[in-house]
Formats: sequence, structure tokens, C-alpha cells
Amino acid sequence: MHTYAVHMHQHPVAVVGASGYSGLELTRILARHPQVRLTALLSDRWAGEKAGGRLALSGPAAQLAYTPLAGAGEVEAELSFLATPAEVSKDLAPRLLARGQKVIDLSGAFRLEDPAAYPTWYGFEHPAPQLLEEARYGLPELSRQGLLGARLVANAGCYASAIALAIAPFVKAGLALPEGVAVTALSGVSGAGRRTAEEYSFAEIADDLRAYRLARHQHLPEIEQTVARYGGRCGPVSFAPVLIPIRRGILATAHLRLREGTSAAHLSAALEAAYQGEPFVRVLPAERVKVQDVLHSNRCHLGVALDPRAHLAVVVSALDNLVKGAAGSATQAMNAVLGLEETAGLDLLGG
Amino acid sequence: MHTYAVHMHQHPVAVVGASGYSGLELTRILARHPQVRLTALLSDRWAGEKAGGRLALSGPAAQLAYTPLAGAGEVEAELSFLATPAEVSKDLAPRLLARGQKVIDLSGAFRLEDPAAYPTWYGFEHPAPQLLEEARYGLPELSRQGLLGARLVANAGCYASAIALAIAPFVKAGLALPEGVAVTALSGVSGAGRRTAEEYSFAEIADDLRAYRLARHQHLPEIEQTVARYGGRCGPVSFAPVLIPIRRGILATAHLRLREGTSAAHLSAALEAAYQGEPFVRVLPAERVKVQDVLHSNRCHLGVALDPRAHLAVVVSALDNLVKGAAGSATQAMNAVLGLEETAGLDLLGG
Amino acid sequence: MHTYAVHMHQHPVAVVGASGYSGLELTRILARHPQVRLTALLSDRWAGEKAGGRLALSGPAAQLAYTPLAGAGEVEAELSFLATPAEVSKDLAPRLLARGQKVIDLSGAFRLEDPAAYPTWYGFEHPAPQLLEEARYGLPELSRQGLLGARLVANAGCYASAIALAIAPFVKAGLALPEGVAVTALSGVSGAGRRTAEEYSFAEIADDLRAYRLARHQHLPEIEQTVARYGGRCGPVSFAPVLIPIRRGILATAHLRLREGTSAAHLSAALEAAYQGEPFVRVLPAERVKVQDVLHSNRCHLGVALDPRAHLAVVVSALDNLVKGAAGSATQAMNAVLGLEETAGLDLLGG
Amino acid sequence: MHTYAVHMHQHPVAVVGASGYSGLELTRILARHPQVRLTALLSDRWAGEKAGGRLALSGPAAQLAYTPLAGAGEVEAELSFLATPAEVSKDLAPRLLARGQKVIDLSGAFRLEDPAAYPTWYGFEHPAPQLLEEARYGLPELSRQGLLGARLVANAGCYASAIALAIAPFVKAGLALPEGVAVTALSGVSGAGRRTAEEYSFAEIADDLRAYRLARHQHLPEIEQTVARYGGRCGPVSFAPVLIPIRRGILATAHLRLREGTSAAHLSAALEAAYQGEPFVRVLPAERVKVQDVLHSNRCHLGVALDPRAHLAVVVSALDNLVKGAAGSATQAMNAVLGLEETAGLDLLGG
Repeated sequence: MHTYAVHMHQHPVAVVGASGYSGLELTRILARHPQVRLTALLSDRWAGEKAGGRLALSGPAAQLAYTPLAGAGEVEAELSFLATPAEVSKDLAPRLLARGQKVIDLSGAFRLEDPAAYPTWYGFEHPAPQLLEEARYGLPELSRQGLLGARLVANAGCYASAIALAIAPFVKAGLALPEGVAVTALSGVSGAGRRTAEEYSFAEIADDLRAYRLARHQHLPEIEQTVARYGGRCGPVSFAPVLIPIRRGILATAHLRLREGTSAAHLSAALEAAYQGEPFVRVLPAERVKVQDVLHSNRCHLGVALDPRAHLAVVVSALDNLVKGAAGSATQAMNAVLGLEETAGLDLLGG
Repeated sequence: MHTYAVHMHQHPVAVVGASGYSGLELTRILARHPQVRLTALLSDRWAGEKAGGRLALSGPAAQLAYTPLAGAGEVEAELSFLATPAEVSKDLAPRLLARGQKVIDLSGAFRLEDPAAYPTWYGFEHPAPQLLEEARYGLPELSRQGLLGARLVANAGCYASAIALAIAPFVKAGLALPEGVAVTALSGVSGAGRRTAEEYSFAEIADDLRAYRLARHQHLPEIEQTVARYGGRCGPVSFAPVLIPIRRGILATAHLRLREGTSAAHLSAALEAAYQGEPFVRVLPAERVKVQDVLHSNRCHLGVALDPRAHLAVVVSALDNLVKGAAGSATQAMNAVLGLEETAGLDLLGG
Repeated sequence: MHTYAVHMHQHPVAVVGASGYSGLELTRILARHPQVRLTALLSDRWAGEKAGGRLALSGPAAQLAYTPLAGAGEVEAELSFLATPAEVSKDLAPRLLARGQKVIDLSGAFRLEDPAAYPTWYGFEHPAPQLLEEARYGLPELSRQGLLGARLVANAGCYASAIALAIAPFVKAGLALPEGVAVTALSGVSGAGRRTAEEYSFAEIADDLRAYRLARHQHLPEIEQTVARYGGRCGPVSFAPVLIPIRRGILATAHLRLREGTSAAHLSAALEAAYQGEPFVRVLPAERVKVQDVLHSNRCHLGVALDPRAHLAVVVSALDNLVKGAAGSATQAMNAVLGLEETAGLDLLGG
Repeated sequence: MHTYAVHMHQHPVAVVGASGYSGLELTRILARHPQVRLTALLSDRWAGEKAGGRLALSGPAAQLAYTPLAGAGEVEAELSFLATPAEVSKDLAPRLLARGQKVIDLSGAFRLEDPAAYPTWYGFEHPAPQLLEEARYGLPELSRQGLLGARLVANAGCYASAIALAIAPFVKAGLALPEGVAVTALSGVSGAGRRTAEEYSFAEIADDLRAYRLARHQHLPEIEQTVARYGGRCGPVSFAPVLIPIRRGILATAHLRLREGTSAAHLSAALEAAYQGEPFVRVLPAERVKVQDVLHSNRCHLGVALDPRAHLAVVVSALDNLVKGAAGSATQAMNAVLGLEETAGLDLLGG
């Protein structure tokens, strides 16, 4: 027998930037979340259209019409998701907070605690530095504390999620040095968002592999900050992102320098221990971590192998950049903020 | 005006293992090589069929019939290419050498100078250890010496070519430490050869990314030996191979620890200097190295970026695993062995 | 407010052939179906493993262990899904029926009413011809009658679903001739099931397009029978299946000869009328029918364009071969058999 | 022994629109054509850059700099290839002809003999209707006559080549009716040219299949005109183009209604006879026609199957849209115009 709660309360929430790939995924997830009611979907691109014309939704969400972003400040919601570029989020979040809403921002606009880092990594002076202190980081497996009741969540970036989850346990356990971490991470193309530039056209991407933003990707300070908070310390990480001709999915390999005496068993034990009981992290043998297995789900699969010759650990991490790397993770953060089960609306995703 | 040599001599050559992906590519290249005449194509799979039925060849090569591998010892040729597994090559090469042929082996059977390494990395005791000393390594850009007139060439592996070309110049120039090199290399599926296992089926590979043979790929000792010979020293390299859903192409990223004082200019200069005048290596800005640009060609594209925060170099390397990583490279080695222009038959490939 | 029924009854069901692509999809769907309880998953390949190790399931289904196919006759279930080849289903279904179970067979073993057609199209004499008469065809949009309470459902084939749904309305409405229908249908590779043959390897499929079983695909008699039952008549359909390098999805184009006087408006109206109120069929402008929009969902998208020059209709049809073409459709049929809402467990799929 | 002609004459030729996908392929081919000398490469996009920076060319072509399209009228060449949109070609070709150059136009600007067809199919009034009469159609296998010495060649379209080659022999032989031909043709994305529109972005194209320009593709009148000229008559063809997530390649299936008494043997014989001795057409069993086999080559592979139940023929046709469907075919036409071997510069392509 299944027993469902009767008359479940539904929190009114809005999605700003609902036609981007993350916004679409958020809409799919939230429309089926039993404790949430979508009250607004904001998108200039599709303003006036009904959500049911773009997504196969059933129920009231299908009838919801997209409305222009300009109206974001007037939306009636308890909580708004911002699936907007950092340049938009940085100004919009304060306005929504001022109206008494909670905000979960999927951009990098509130992820870095140091305002001085913004010109370097994001190309703007931060307009609301006081909020950087208040914002909670949205990656519950490494920073759950403070999410319950938080006003503003800076949800983790897709690469940052895959990589920080891979590195942090070993640094915290004292098995890996916090310096000299070398990461190569491969991402499907949806990670770049809706793009019309020729370089993102099918004919340019298919059959190709190329690295980009070498050692200058904006997720770098976020990774280092997250690992340092969780693990105690983190030196500069070296990160080579590579664009892969698939639509979605991230696979990261991280090479970690090990302290003397670290064995394969130590590494496995540290990984298991770090994610014991986490519903969305699965620890596997490193060569069984596959992007196919996490597509459309809110899971991150992780594995570690010892390289005894080079005395390094190789950690492999896989997630779906649009779910555990964006919309699923943001929903998980919302659940934590609102005091719901963290898995609510997420445990039926993927397979 | 074009002027061609009249009555050009053609060396008789054979391809053993002509129906594998490397063997097919070799056949394509050699059939159009102006100074070569294909005399035999050995393949059990296609024995009895004509090459023109499998490949769009013109001229006499199209009429050549595939013959069984069992006849490899009786082939009339000045030089045989072995596009066979190491387990086959290790026994076949000595027989052909004994008949007075030259041999270019595309497997790993003769790449390692230390016979004791074979049980570990290749799973067999080497039956002809004296040949390991005689064999010349087929990666002219790093080891041209001794190729002219060589009897036996152990042609470089696909990953090994991409990675050794990326690492060696910096070690030799004293800019990078020979220890702690961390490599992630992505390969298209043809690198695994013709495979019928379910794990290589389209439905399992498409949309997926996964690492394999972490820190235990058989190209590791080959990379280290090659870098050490060229650059003076090489510690254990850590290598994470990743399988990518494309048919062909390798992209490698190598993280190198730098000596104090190494600048971006030093790195670029060392790379340029190492490959000055090499017809098949092109040095580019690291973020312009792309697999699409080298497909079907015998080129390797290389670029280096300094990571000043982590004090590492990130080297990016791209090649076509079937051409510069196998058949093209083997043809280049043959040219060197026979005293032909190294670019003969190769400069028209790709685009 | 959401209100859920309390103490919902759950029907015990089994999946035989649970490790094939259709079986996996069935397991995913049924494990989340609120009115179903999985009692057995049969698979020789994974016998002994738990379902939670292969699929990210929550709840009791994750703990279910795969058991060998040999035990199919002893399974405790009200209804069994057979995701097995026709050769297996033809013998297994009678045994399960004899034990008092209901059976939904995903193979072609019970789809054709004429026993004499089996040797030609399926290569075997049918062992239970009396069941061909009893079996109900599982494509509710065209043949809902008789499903409620049926003992045996022969679920529609993937191509047959896409194509019959595209043709039948126009024949029935008298707008198209029942003769001379020409279909080309493109299918992703999972349609062929788990395959280890070289021709299904990634390197052979990627970048390729090829037609197969031209005018001899076993879904032909099924298509004709289905259209004839629904539309009154159907001549021989000509069908060219094409293998496409994607994992899942079918797109069919059907060229139909029109009766004099048929206009574009007639065509659209007939299509709309045929599927009015069907939750899983969406009628769109023909050039907006896309495979991406139906992936992972139980929907079929359909559109029709008039070719006024050639006086033909071109109907375009898209579905996910593993969902609306197999596992989703089978679940829909089960819902109809058991008297549940036809959308139960299916309306949350895809997006 | 190979013998080459000494001091081969080289015709000076230019490529206008050299940075599009067809223009790039033309540059690759012409740079290696022994009887051609590239004198100009026109491209606004890459003006000022050297060709060797974009393509791996050797010899003088590598040093050629791209120059702006505005200078097309001043180029010194015996013959110019126009790899420009029809809107550009229609005005440029007359200017070049007036300067005494020969022109091979890869667009549709001169393909239709009836000026009145241009507003309907190409959206413009034709500015030089007298040239439509003079222009020779560039598909030598079906219309070789008049190419030698022609001033203006309207080179065949990619779809039109694949489809006309598939249909024409059967109409000419009187085996198929010239009416009621139904074609579905699948094309890789490069057929659309360099595109920056979102609908051609990787994330929108990958995993998707969709039909477009149903019964209104501009190659329709070209197909019908070509078949009619060669075969005597051609009614309106119905054509459904489908966009496929591969970079290059076309596969067409054509359903032809047959005259009474037509057998499979008749069909095969007609196809063999039509292309007897053609170096670039290969007739195969229909299910062995594959896009992979023609990629990068100037070949079209064709096969025919009888559908005895529906009394139709199904013809399958495959070519590389950028080579036999564009640049290779244009080079073949140039060879015919200049009186060279038709295979010159083309027989080494692909494999």
C-alpha cells in the first residue's frame, strides 16, 4: 500500500529565465514537485506562450503563460529561482529579497565571498557585497549548514559541483595535499546555455574536442572556496575544461597529490565516509563512473583510483550539468531552505 | 608548372592485418603513395575479397585480393607493416626479419626496451628480447635518429604520440619537472579497434563519457621511456584515458609542474623550438587546438598555456588516432627508413 | 492543494527480460507507477544483482534482485510483461496464461491475427494460433476496445506505432487511398536492442546512415492489419527503415496518395479529430514534429503537410521507440487492461 | 613504375566564397589538383588571413591570402567557382562572364531553365534570364553533353544530385512511372552551410530528427527538370528532407511506382547500365549503400530493391553533400569544361 499525505501544502515559486536550458529543466522538475506550485515563468523569448506548448506538462503548469523578465519584481511567489546570467542576477536578487521573497540564484553572482574577486572572474564590480556574506552556497553535500531558512542561496556551478565533490573529501581527510590539484573536466554543450554563435553550431562542435578557458574558468575560485570551507584548506586548482560533442553531462578527472602512506583503501574509505547517507551521491569503482548513468537524474557518481607509481589519486566524477549541476541541485537547495525532504520532487528523475 | 619525377621507383610493401581500422587507413595511404607498391593485404576476415570492394581505390591496389594471415611469412615485399595485436606481432616480426624483410610494427610488441616490462604491461613474456634493443621507435619528431635503414620499427602508440609530443619539449628545456605529470586524454572509439563487445556498441557509447584503465594503460611506460630518451629524465606519469563518443581523434591535456621562474613566453618558445621545421606538428595557441582540424591528416596540433596561479603548464595536444596516431605515422616512419621524403604520400591527407 | 488517494491498491506485476533496453525502461516506469508493485525482474544477464545497482530506483524496487528467466513460470504476479524476443514470448505467454496471469507481450509473437503470416515474417510456425484470436492489440489510440480485462495484449511495435498512427486517420476519413502508401522511417539504435554484432558497434554506426530490411521488415503486416482494422482497408505499404546514429527516437515520413478534392484543411481536421482527447498524441504543424520533444516521454507527435503539386500528403510522426514505442505503451496498455487511468505512471515522463 | 607528365599546364582558378563549407572543400581539392593553380580565395570573413592558417595545405596555396568578395570582379583567373548564395551568384556570374572568365556556380542561381520559376523557388526575379538558357547543368553522369568548353556551369545541388541519380535511370528505362515519385532524403547539417541560428546549434540538433521544407524544397524543380531531360518525362516529385545529427552525408530513399512486369532483375540491370563506366557512381545491393563509405569522396553509391507487395521500387542513394554534392562535383564539372580527365584531382579523395 502507498499512502500519500492529503492536502499537502504547496509553496508558490517562480522561475526567472525559464527558457534557457536550466530554466526549462527547472520548470520540468518544479511542475511535478508535489510541494510546489509554479506561479510564474519569466522569459522574454517566449513571452505570451503557454508552458504547455513548449514542455509536455500536465496540470495547471501547462496553462501558465510566460511573462517578460521586466516583471520579475512584481511576481507573487514565496521563492524565486533565477536562471539568469550573473549580470542579471546580481541586480535582480536584491530587488526580490527586498520584496520579502527568498531567492535561489543559479548564476555565479553570489557564489564568491570575496567581492574583490568579481571584477577578475566575472567582469563586474559587485553591486551588493553585503549579500555575499549572507548568501548560503547551494551544494548541500558539502555545505548543508545554514540552508534551512536562508533568504539567498547561491547555487553551485555545474563544473564546481562535479569537481568540489571529487576533491573535498580527500583534502578534509588529510589524504591529499591541498596544493597541486590538476583537473580536466569534460562538458556537454548545454553547459554553455542557449548559444547562437557559430562556434556552438552543430557543424563546428560535432566530431570535435577542444579545451577552453584554460586556467581561467570562473568556477575556479568557487571550487577552491568550497573545498577550503569543507576541507580546511585549498591551494590554487588547475582546471582544463574541454567541450565534448554531447548535449549534456560532465565527467571530471582530478589528479591529487597524496600524503605519504595513503593507500587505495584509505581513499575509498574517505569517499564512502564523506557521502554516507547522501541520497544523491553514489560511490562506485572509478572505472564504473559513467555519464550515461546520471543523465536526467540528480545524482553525482564518484570513484577514486590510486596511481601507486605516480603517488597520485585519480578521482572521477560524473553528473548531468542541467540537473545535479543546475536545476536539480537548485531544487534540492530549495527543499533544504523550506524544510522539505531534500529528495522531494527529485527521486523520480532519471533512472 | 608542376614537375614530377618520371619513372619513380616503387618499393614493394605489404600490410598484415589489413581489415582493422589502422590497417584500412594504411591501405588507403599506401595505395596512393607515389613511391610504394602494395603487393599484399593480409586479412582473415576479408580473405578472397578484392580491396576495391572495401575501399574506393583506383589503380592496381583495387584489384589486390586479401589473403589469409597465415601466409604472412611468404609475402613478397621489401617491407611489411604489422597492423596486428601485440600478441601476433611479437611472433611474426622475427619471422619476417629472418626472411630479410623490414618490418614496421604498429603494436606495442617492440616499443619497450626493457623485456621485464612486458609481462606487466602486455601480459606476455617477450619471445625476442634481443629485438627490443634493435628496434627503433617510430615517432620521428622525438626520435628520428637511427630510422634510416632500420630493420625493425616499433611505431608509436596513439596516446603515446599525443602525450609524449606534449610533454617532452618542456622536460628537455628544463622548464617542467620530470615528476608529477598528470595527463587526461580523450579518445574516439576507433582507438579500441574493431570491437564487437557490448560495451563498444553504439547504444552504450553514445551520450556517454567514461574513464578506463586508470593509471594502468599500457602506453604509460612507452610515454615515460620516450620522454626520458628525448628529455633526459621522466618520472612516473599519471594518465587517465577517457572514452568519447566520436569515431576518431585524441585530445590530451597534460598538467606539468614548472620550475621556478618559468614564464608563458618560455613555454611557447620551447614548444616552437622543439618542432621548428617539423612538417607534421603545428604549434597554436592552446585554446585553438581542435580535433576537427587534424582529422584524416598526419598532423599533431599542440599548444601550451601557463597556469600562473597553480604554477603549472597545461599542454593541449590533438591528433587523429588512426593517422598521426597509427597509419600515417607508420608511413612517415617507412619514409624515414627508406630514405624518402618524410612527407611522401602524407602531405595530401586531411585538410 | 494536491489531494492523493490514500491506501491505493497496488497490482503485483513482473517484468520478464528486464535487462534489455525495453525491459530497463519498463522497470524504470513501473517502479514509479503508484498503482503497481514490482514483484519480479527476470534476467539471466543480471541474475543475482539488485535492481538498485543497475538503475537509480528508490523504495522497495531498488532491493529487488534479478532472477533467471527459467523461473518465469513460477513468478507470483497478477500480470507479467514479456520484454523478450518473439521466439521466447510465443512459448512463455501460454504458460503464464495457464497459470492465471495476464500477459502483456512487447514482442511480435501475438500481433498478427493470421497464423500463416508467422513463418514468413517471424520465421516460426506459431505454436498457439488460438491465442492470436484472443490477443488484443496494444495501441489504445487505434484499438482501445477490448483492452479492459483482456488476458493477453500484443503490444504494438515501435515502427508500427509511429507509422499506423500516421496513416490510419487519413484512410479512415477517406482522404487517402489505402494503396500506394510509401514510408521511410528513421530509428535510433536502441530499437535493435542490446547488440554485440560489429555492425552495431559505435565505430560502424556513428557518422553513418543506411537503410535495411527494405520492403521486408516484420512490422509491415502489423501496420497493414492495424490500419485496416481502424480505417477499413489497407493495401500493401512500402516501408524503408533507416538506421540513424542516435540512441533513441523514431521519425517516420509517410507519403499518402490523396482522393480528389482533398485539401490541407481536410487533412489537418482529420488528424485533429482522430486524436482529440488522446493524452499521448499531440498534433502539430508537420515541420514542428521533432524527436527531441518526445524523448523519454510516452507521446507521439504527428503533423501533416499537403503536397499540392504531387497531390500527396506527407505525414510526419515522432516517438521514443523505448517509451511510446515499447515500455510506455505497454504500461498504457496495462492501465487499460486493469481499468486504471490510462495516464497513470506515465504523465510525469519526459518533458 | 609510375610515370607523370612533366611540366603539366595549370589552369588559374579562383574560389569566391572560400570560407563556407563548400568553399573550404573546394579549396582543399583544388589546392591538390595537379592541373589547377589557385590564384584567389575570396572571403570577407577571413580577409587578410592566409589559407595555410585555416587549412593544412602545402605548397603555394598555403601562402594565398583571403581577399574580400568585393574584389571578385577583378580576380585574374581563367575560371571562377562561385560558392556563394544564389542571391550573390545571380549578379556576380554575369560580371565574371563579361570579363571573359568561365564560371562554375555552386548555387541554384542558374539551375532552372524557366526564369518564371525563380520567384517561386528562390524568391527573386532572375536578372539574367538569357544565361539560364546558356548554362550547362553540372551533373555529368546525367548531362555530360555541352560541358566541354561551356562558359557557365550551374552545378547540381546536393539533394538534387542524390535524388536525380536515383530516379532518372528507371524513368528513362521505362520501368518506373514518371509520376508519384515519393522521396525522403536525410542530410547532415553542413548541408545548411555555416549557420549561427539557434536552430542549428549543437544542443538543438543533437539527438534530434526533424523534417523541414516539406514539399517545398528549392531542389524540387531542379530534380524534375534533370530527370525529365535525361529520362524523357517527370511528374511532380514529392520530397521530404530530414535533418540528421551528423556533419556531412546524404541518404535518400525514393519510392517509384513501377510499370507492369518490372522485375528485380530489370531494376538492377537498368541501374547498372545507366552508370556503366562512370568513375564516381557505384551500384551496390540497396542495403549495402552507406553514408560512411562515401564520406570525403566524390562518389555516389546507389542501390535498388523491388517491393513486390506494393509493386514499387525503393532506390537508395548516398553521397557526401560537400564533395559529390558540391565541391567534388564542381571540380568534376570543371574537368569536363576544360577537357581534362574527369577524375583529375578527385580520384584520391575519400577511401
